[in-house]
Amino acid sequence: MDRLKEKIRTEGTAIGKDIVKVDGFLNHQVDVKFLHEIGEEFARRFADVQVDRILTVEASGIAIASCTAPYFGYPPVVFAKKAAPNTMVDGVYEEEARSFTKGTVSRLRVSKQFLHAGENVLILDDFLAYGEASLALVEIVRKAGARLAGIGIVIEKGFQGGSDKLRARGCRVESLAVIEKIEDGVITFGGGDAGE
Amino acid sequence: MDRLKEKIRTEGTAIGKDIVKVDGFLNHQVDVKFLHEIGEEFARRFADVQVDRILTVEASGIAIASCTAPYFGYPPVVFAKKAAPNTMVDGVYEEEARSFTKGTVSRLRVSKQFLHAGENVLILDDFLAYGEASLALVEIVRKAGARLAGIGIVIEKGFQGGSDKLRARGCRVESLAVIEKIEDGVITFGGGDAGE
Repeated sequence: MDRLKEKIRTEGTAIGKDIVKVDGFLNHQVDVKFLHEIGEEFARRFADVQVDRILTVEASGIAIASCTAPYFGYPPVVFAKKAAPNTMVDGVYEEEARSFTKGTVSRLRVSKQFLHAGENVLILDDFLAYGEASLALVEIVRKAGARLAGIGIVIEKGFQGGSDKLRARGCRVESLAVIEKIEDGVITFGGGDAGE
Repeated sequence: MDRLKEKIRTEGTAIGKDIVKVDGFLNHQVDVKFLHEIGEEFARRFADVQVDRILTVEASGIAIASCTAPYFGYPPVVFAKKAAPNTMVDGVYEEEARSFTKGTVSRLRVSKQFLHAGENVLILDDFLAYGEASLALVEIVRKAGARLAGIGIVIEKGFQGGSDKLRARGCRVESLAVIEKIEDGVITFGGGDAGE
């Protein structure tokens, strides 16, 4: 998605070899109008699948899912909550997700009330790095007996291998921008961006 | 807002005398179509003021702000991040907010990059209880040298005094539903709902 790559190039900040900050339109300040373009693009990419529900993770995923839902006919959006490990709660699907970028582990929790067997669930998230958060969401969908319609990612860091892991498990991944390399403050995009 | 009260009555759960859970459309599962009605209503209530930016708090506030921004002409949305106290960071406006409901204290942080002097800022949040989170956001707006356009709240618990505190400081508060009492599982709405 060219507009996204352009926005990452002009408004994003590359930090070291691993991190791209896009606080200006995605992770702290949110450009809602642009997120509607993102939402339309997800709808275009997943036009061939039935989506009964969108699943994401707090916090940034909520804006993406909220701006994407209209283009899928307003299915319910559910955001997994991040909690500290080891505080067990009944009535939830729970999976651990490590963030290598932040050096933290959280447990992603979704109430059993809000995921149902047989539904087609589209997972959306802002970033795909090592794939830990997405793998946890996929496992939550599986536990609920729901079907995975696919995984829509705004920015994939291709060099961290998350999408390979997900595809190896049979998941369809659509990333709107795939970063192949971050070096000397320069972000290089790769060819994994199948939609263009 | 009658549709909101109806939704709280039929889909919300009253717990004890203080808590209303609306996880089914606002705080965990999100009804994006309904949040667009919320957004339109905020735009109607604040039609007389200029709004250059919407400020909210993660996580639930993000959905509300994302669905409201289109009705104000897509101003930038900024969500304050909740961090543990005592980890100081440069370049942010930071205010402490106690949650009496959750028994926690968090520091709300907004990057100085994303709030500017002279701007008109509309604060949006899901709940108004004792007013601690809103007061923290108001203080952040003041520190930035911005102007408060008003505070839009989806559900106010009128009996916890938050709106009185905010109005005593000269803030305009518009709450779409004001709960006056929670007793024996019954939610009673008050007359503070000036828009009807």
